[in-house]
Amino acid sequence: MANKPKTRTAAILIIGNEILSGRTPDQNFPYLAPALNEIGVILCEARTIADDEPSIIAAVNECRAAFDYVFTTGGIGPTHDDITASCIAKAFGVALVVHPEARRRLEAHYPTDDLNEARLRMARVPEGASLIDNPVSAAPGFRLDNVYVMAGVPGIMRAMFDGIRHSLMGGVVVLSRSISVHLPEGTLATPLAALQERNTDVEIGSYPFFRAGQLGSSIVMRCTDADRLGLVADALKELMRDLDGEPIEDAKP
Amino acid sequence: MANKPKTRTAAILIIGNEILSGRTPDQNFPYLAPALNEIGVILCEARTIADDEPSIIAAVNECRAAFDYVFTTGGIGPTHDDITASCIAKAFGVALVVHPEARRRLEAHYPTDDLNEARLRMARVPEGASLIDNPVSAAPGFRLDNVYVMAGVPGIMRAMFDGIRHSLMGGVVVLSRSISVHLPEGTLATPLAALQERNTDVEIGSYPFFRAGQLGSSIVMRCTDADRLGLVADALKELMRDLDGEPIEDAKP
Repeated sequence: MANKPKTRTAAILIIGNEILSGRTPDQNFPYLAPALNEIGVILCEARTIADDEPSIIAAVNECRAAFDYVFTTGGIGPTHDDITASCIAKAFGVALVVHPEARRRLEAHYPTDDLNEARLRMARVPEGASLIDNPVSAAPGFRLDNVYVMAGVPGIMRAMFDGIRHSLMGGVVVLSRSISVHLPEGTLATPLAALQERNTDVEIGSYPFFRAGQLGSSIVMRCTDADRLGLVADALKELMRDLDGEPIEDAKP
Repeated sequence: MANKPKTRTAAILIIGNEILSGRTPDQNFPYLAPALNEIGVILCEARTIADDEPSIIAAVNECRAAFDYVFTTGGIGPTHDDITASCIAKAFGVALVVHPEARRRLEAHYPTDDLNEARLRMARVPEGASLIDNPVSAAPGFRLDNVYVMAGVPGIMRAMFDGIRHSLMGGVVVLSRSISVHLPEGTLATPLAALQERNTDVEIGSYPFFRAGQLGSSIVMRCTDADRLGLVADALKELMRDLDGEPIEDAKP
């Protein structure tokens, strides 16, 4: 029998005043959450913080100690409020240095007159970091140990992540199924708790909804074993029918 | 001269596997972030975490020590995965008890036959907590010390928050203005950094955009003093015109 695959965990740090103020809706978390799940990395936390040095340093150090991977978005552009790279360097206690290859890429991308000092800031990475490619606008992200530092602009962040995802060590993939019923949560709760009790390897979540004037519950089951997931889903449908509810299989949750 | 108003800070904890998995987009943060700003509470962090006891306890204890207010959403329904109330009790080291008034409200809301044991779970609060009204579906939220525990369902969360917002002690309100220009960030960066340097009381953020085939930058200024904000905005417009850019005043950021 093969060894049980290791669990891999991650946190996302969304860095930016514009996100925290509610001005700009974050679009990176909705991309990263399912993408990480697909490769078997369990997302344990997503934290939105300000462009504030003590906050960034504290969050990076807390999360890189607690999780296998940390992905940051935002704060690596050319302006004075782009402080993520220098904060990561401080979090690791290393110098911020110009990366020769990053500089070369910026030189290749910008006409000589346009490559001013501000843009050259984007070639600075913490000492020891390796680059994350930016096929959109040249200025790279970087990886240092288990921390992956990416752009905040969604199109660039996605391109960066797509370039590194194959290199991430995934664990076991969590499968899920969602079944809804037009019964309120309070009616389902007791037999549902018993179902969870009998099947501790399947995580069962319950989410109320109110659609077209009708109250209902969506039950989401998550498990790494497809057979076990199927058995618990069957038991759930039976439980719903016992309460005179008609189970509705949801599209891929 | 009046005393300088105190700064008030807050964190939001978004509790729920369905949010963290990307299955359900959170709708509470976009409501709370501007609402807190309006009353002069500075949102410093928004953290999305799983329905997981150690994670909830750790996040609650970390945030209630670090910020003036903590607002949680999610995990106070009737099902087995609704563990927020018991986690808050554990975070504070107090018992979880049935609140007589909460029980009375549930009894008034549900027909006797429907008020089963699962629904009565929603009357349990940490010892010493006061209730937060739920005008939508009776089951209340609660406040313990500086932690406000609210429902995850957006309509209910909003009603709960609207009921407590007048009781929150706001600090000085942060005003903001946003001015855009069709110039790339790298072109603006150096004079913008100098503008920030000369006006440290105004927080200046720069955000790139790409609209209708044109690259540009939105500059957001935030300050508690309307006059100072106006002066810096004027200087910014001049700076943009010096670079042959036409400043565009954005709608309220």
